[in-house]
Amino acid sequence: MAVQAVWLDCDPGHDDAMAILLAGYSPALQLLGVSTVASNQVVEKTTRNALDMLDLIGLTHIGVVMGQAKPLLRPAALLCPEIHGETGLDGPQGGPVLPHSGRQALPGKAAIVMFEAIQQHYGRQPQQRVQLVCTGALTNAALLLLLYPEVAGMIEITIMGGALGVGNTGPVQEFNIQVDPEAARVVFEAGVPLTMVPLEVTHTALATPEVLGRMFSRGGAGSISPFKALVELLLTFFASTYKDVFGFHGGAPLHDPCAIAAVIAPSIFKFELMRVDIETVSPLAAGQTVCDIWHQSSAPKNCRVAREMDVDAFWELMLAAVDATDLAAPMNKPQPAPEAAAAQEA
Amino acid sequence: MAVQAVWLDCDPGHDDAMAILLAGYSPALQLLGVSTVASNQVVEKTTRNALDMLDLIGLTHIGVVMGQAKPLLRPAALLCPEIHGETGLDGPQGGPVLPHSGRQALPGKAAIVMFEAIQQHYGRQPQQRVQLVCTGALTNAALLLLLYPEVAGMIEITIMGGALGVGNTGPVQEFNIQVDPEAARVVFEAGVPLTMVPLEVTHTALATPEVLGRMFSRGGAGSISPFKALVELLLTFFASTYKDVFGFHGGAPLHDPCAIAAVIAPSIFKFELMRVDIETVSPLAAGQTVCDIWHQSSAPKNCRVAREMDVDAFWELMLAAVDATDLAAPMNKPQPAPEAAAAQEA
Amino acid sequence: MAVQAVWLDCDPGHDDAMAILLAGYSPALQLLGVSTVASNQVVEKTTRNALDMLDLIGLTHIGVVMGQAKPLLRPAALLCPEIHGETGLDGPQGGPVLPHSGRQALPGKAAIVMFEAIQQHYGRQPQQRVQLVCTGALTNAALLLLLYPEVAGMIEITIMGGALGVGNTGPVQEFNIQVDPEAARVVFEAGVPLTMVPLEVTHTALATPEVLGRMFSRGGAGSISPFKALVELLLTFFASTYKDVFGFHGGAPLHDPCAIAAVIAPSIFKFELMRVDIETVSPLAAGQTVCDIWHQSSAPKNCRVAREMDVDAFWELMLAAVDATDLAAPMNKPQPAPEAAAAQEA
Amino acid sequence: MAVQAVWLDCDPGHDDAMAILLAGYSPALQLLGVSTVASNQVVEKTTRNALDMLDLIGLTHIGVVMGQAKPLLRPAALLCPEIHGETGLDGPQGGPVLPHSGRQALPGKAAIVMFEAIQQHYGRQPQQRVQLVCTGALTNAALLLLLYPEVAGMIEITIMGGALGVGNTGPVQEFNIQVDPEAARVVFEAGVPLTMVPLEVTHTALATPEVLGRMFSRGGAGSISPFKALVELLLTFFASTYKDVFGFHGGAPLHDPCAIAAVIAPSIFKFELMRVDIETVSPLAAGQTVCDIWHQSSAPKNCRVAREMDVDAFWELMLAAVDATDLAAPMNKPQPAPEAAAAQEA
Repeated sequence: MAVQAVWLDCDPGHDDAMAILLAGYSPALQLLGVSTVASNQVVEKTTRNALDMLDLIGLTHIGVVMGQAKPLLRPAALLCPEIHGETGLDGPQGGPVLPHSGRQALPGKAAIVMFEAIQQHYGRQPQQRVQLVCTGALTNAALLLLLYPEVAGMIEITIMGGALGVGNTGPVQEFNIQVDPEAARVVFEAGVPLTMVPLEVTHTALATPEVLGRMFSRGGAGSISPFKALVELLLTFFASTYKDVFGFHGGAPLHDPCAIAAVIAPSIFKFELMRVDIETVSPLAAGQTVCDIWHQSSAPKNCRVAREMDVDAFWELMLAAVDATDLAAPMNKPQPAPEAAAAQEA
Repeated sequence: MAVQAVWLDCDPGHDDAMAILLAGYSPALQLLGVSTVASNQVVEKTTRNALDMLDLIGLTHIGVVMGQAKPLLRPAALLCPEIHGETGLDGPQGGPVLPHSGRQALPGKAAIVMFEAIQQHYGRQPQQRVQLVCTGALTNAALLLLLYPEVAGMIEITIMGGALGVGNTGPVQEFNIQVDPEAARVVFEAGVPLTMVPLEVTHTALATPEVLGRMFSRGGAGSISPFKALVELLLTFFASTYKDVFGFHGGAPLHDPCAIAAVIAPSIFKFELMRVDIETVSPLAAGQTVCDIWHQSSAPKNCRVAREMDVDAFWELMLAAVDATDLAAPMNKPQPAPEAAAAQEA
Repeated sequence: MAVQAVWLDCDPGHDDAMAILLAGYSPALQLLGVSTVASNQVVEKTTRNALDMLDLIGLTHIGVVMGQAKPLLRPAALLCPEIHGETGLDGPQGGPVLPHSGRQALPGKAAIVMFEAIQQHYGRQPQQRVQLVCTGALTNAALLLLLYPEVAGMIEITIMGGALGVGNTGPVQEFNIQVDPEAARVVFEAGVPLTMVPLEVTHTALATPEVLGRMFSRGGAGSISPFKALVELLLTFFASTYKDVFGFHGGAPLHDPCAIAAVIAPSIFKFELMRVDIETVSPLAAGQTVCDIWHQSSAPKNCRVAREMDVDAFWELMLAAVDATDLAAPMNKPQPAPEAAAAQEA
Repeated sequence: MAVQAVWLDCDPGHDDAMAILLAGYSPALQLLGVSTVASNQVVEKTTRNALDMLDLIGLTHIGVVMGQAKPLLRPAALLCPEIHGETGLDGPQGGPVLPHSGRQALPGKAAIVMFEAIQQHYGRQPQQRVQLVCTGALTNAALLLLLYPEVAGMIEITIMGGALGVGNTGPVQEFNIQVDPEAARVVFEAGVPLTMVPLEVTHTALATPEVLGRMFSRGGAGSISPFKALVELLLTFFASTYKDVFGFHGGAPLHDPCAIAAVIAPSIFKFELMRVDIETVSPLAAGQTVCDIWHQSSAPKNCRVAREMDVDAFWELMLAAVDATDLAAPMNKPQPAPEAAAAQEA
């Protein structure tokens, strides 16, 4: 399969950071750009984190555009500091661990910048839709579809989000959808080819000690690289909050990279096409993805839902990308930039 | 523990029939009476089935009162013939397999008759609440609580119903609650000690071939008794509809007896106290039991939710009750009543 | 037309008190009994008020049964002390003005007592349905219809409640319906002949100074009777709260007697048959009567809505009933009962 | 007061056409541009009508940009052909009466074009906010506010829409809000200075025969001008549909020009500041403007609601604008453009 063009819409976020890495260093993908949205943290912080992560891994040429600061209809009430810390990408002591990149976001509105990038790429290669991967709230994606209905013919969308059964930030709600249910409804009803990687699958992508051991020892000659040391800090923090909040004892689930993996290697997933509706009216259940798993609905099937993932194959993709990043990461080179070094020592 | 007084409110229904048997022949219980409700089938049929089942197993002294024919607020729209057949208790060829009992239901309204029985028993033994077990829609229970708020101090309620995650007759809805969500809301907000045995638990009570083998060979000397032959017909039909509708290949789940088991032997369950709210406003999710499993709600915890059941111990209870019934069943006696014999041959 | 049998379900309340008077002293009606419900005040107080009012006006033979203390599904949150005071029937200085009747309510549940009275009367005179007039929340009426669906063939219901447009205790909600929207939904969907007298009509029944002048001077020879003096106290308080809360400057509207008048003299009303649905799901609009005045709905027309009332004719009915009461009121007689006299002086 | 800059967002529509005329020929206003939206008709037709009307009245320099073809979240289900005909601007025989203007809409998305025009004007004259007047569904306005939150500091919004009580296309819903309730919610919660001119006011702007007589005889020397003849055709059709659908016998209400009048001459209105919430969840009431007229809400007051209008003063504005248009209208000039002449004869 040809290399696929990807736009990543995210809210880093620890697992988003790993998704950026996977999207940026998978040989199967060409990363067109990154947009950010408020969900794990306010959009200024998720934008900062996206820029810092991209520069950390040497992708200084990938532009970042800051997206929507609040959901379409609801107040900007739901963030996730208990999982991602005050910066949205905290390390084990709290506070940032990534070096501060001086880079600024691109000017302009995310929906417009996204459309122009997608239209330009699709205009050159109309035989293949651009892959829009969303790993945060769907506010930017919804605005893109509302303002440019014609984009529905140019893209496929893959989201990390939703659940068939039990939720995380709500009894029956997964966080990304719960933040902006109306945006999700726009996306799910837009008639775009849509793939959803729900909690049931992402909860199998646990960064267990065994996995982390493999990640950090691979290709290594005894000592861990500065870059991998940073990744370890991030995942250590992430595992600790997942343990505290949700009682996960075996490591934190890397939700967001699963959505990238579904684009890179759909064959390692079992998908099922079904009707998925977004609950928007109930105070109890707003943000739930009501997945018609018994195929009782007469409404058209609108979503390919991942039901299973080959976890080993997923980690192969992930670890290969970490290795590729490790080779390229500027901070692993003899003379790191002074400010990165300073942050690293902090 | 002393023998507990039980009132069974049900909608037989194949698994309800097994619940009647378990309630009637468990040495730990005293069955005060039975009320019926529309859900698996219309109330005239569930009433007929309750009378027939009780007479079949020799409990001709247990009164049956016919309850509500439709949900509190919604039209009488949701029945379950695809699982229980046109009679509500079909056999493998369709149609009834139980002999027709000539007995009629008690006169009067179920809520009033239930209250009088409960009040009378509780007046005599106020040291122990009466156990109200509901295995159908909660319409009767809700009316009881609405008309007689004082009954809240006299009873404990155990229901088969609800789900933490995926539903059965809806994507996120379990049937009994979905039939009458508003009645469920009344019950869950009544301040009565409440235990819920959800789908996640009842789906472990699979009447597998191995279990059925044990049920029908136990105590047997080669040939199966007429009574057990009837039970086999019922469970054969039930397994076939569960396979067709929900893709269950290992046998049908005996949902309703699990609720009786939770009264008889709470120690074979793991329970978790939590907030459970009933969704009533959403067209997508009405009838969902929103179970606060992450303990995020500030509302008072109002329900003891069964999270796990010792399946072997459950089958021990069930099989012992089948055996006890087998000993007592009139049709196994030398001279069966003429009409029962006729129905048996049909 | 023959005398019509009426059951009055109410929550006195100042205008309810006037409705009791009109129902009790209209020659066109036979008052079978009175039930009470929580809405203007808690049910213990509305029951007290009903007993006191009946005894005040010499109707000591009319039984009162205490009904539901809270709405079907909602908490007992909405009362109306700002309009009717802490007793539910305050006088100008606050506190009670009616003599305390020693009489107690009948034993039993209102829904059951109502049914038995209705069934008994209808059994004797099946050529004419019993008139159930509801001037408070519809909780009792809903329970009656839920528990005894067969009563639908024995009664007609007339309610004071609802609005086509602007509400009173909510922007678009009239109080009686807003207190218990689900009960209203049961009543409006029960298939019973139903008449609704909404705010648009009852707001024309203003007890203006001119009207009160007529009421108190009629038949009078200079001095006002003790009974009329009490009525004046009640209406003075009621006018003052309506002025304070809703800015009514011309006197308070006598909502509830309008519903009685619609039974006595339908010819003084203009009615329009239409579909009326009760809003129950919206946090903003729950309790609204959505009246299909443009006849756009395909649902069956279920309610005769009063659109206009001949106000002069209404006051003729009302003043005649006050006069009849005045002739009969025990307190106007030479030797009032000692306790009534004591309360009157207090 | 200085001339005010206005952007008109509309869905012509007969009364929208009159609003265009009033906005274009009021000496108090500078019309920056026009955007269109789907509501009275599909957006291609409302765009065509806006272009035709502007060219008819000689405003060929005012740009038109085509806006959203469907509501934010709902299907494009609600149009109003029964009032405005198949073209959205039918004449008495059905079909178009306006000459077809060859002009095309501006390229680009309405929300973006609107923002650029507003920002440019406001940048030059920041002492005065730009007036955004919306006379159709609020979809464009909502997208503008979502994509450019900063515009909230540059504009005031005046809408024709909503009702305090009875609605038109629904029992309690006014059409413009009912078409896209979620867009209305965005606008009402955006924190922008907001004025709403509801049905209760616009229903007083009846184009009665007396008013039309004045409109067509003014300044006239016996014979009516070609332009006024066209206006007469439009208003004749509009009056006939209002009579058929809503039973208006005295002429059709010119809803939309009232919103323009509220910008030109606020002093001829009585306004009341209050909380207005948009109902979005109820199947019965979605699209209702819940207006807190009793000031019971604790939410911030967010809307200045017109409660009354000086109808004579309104018609003075309207008739003056018709006269000014009549002087300028190209078709009243000796040599009309050939295609306009052709259409006029058709």
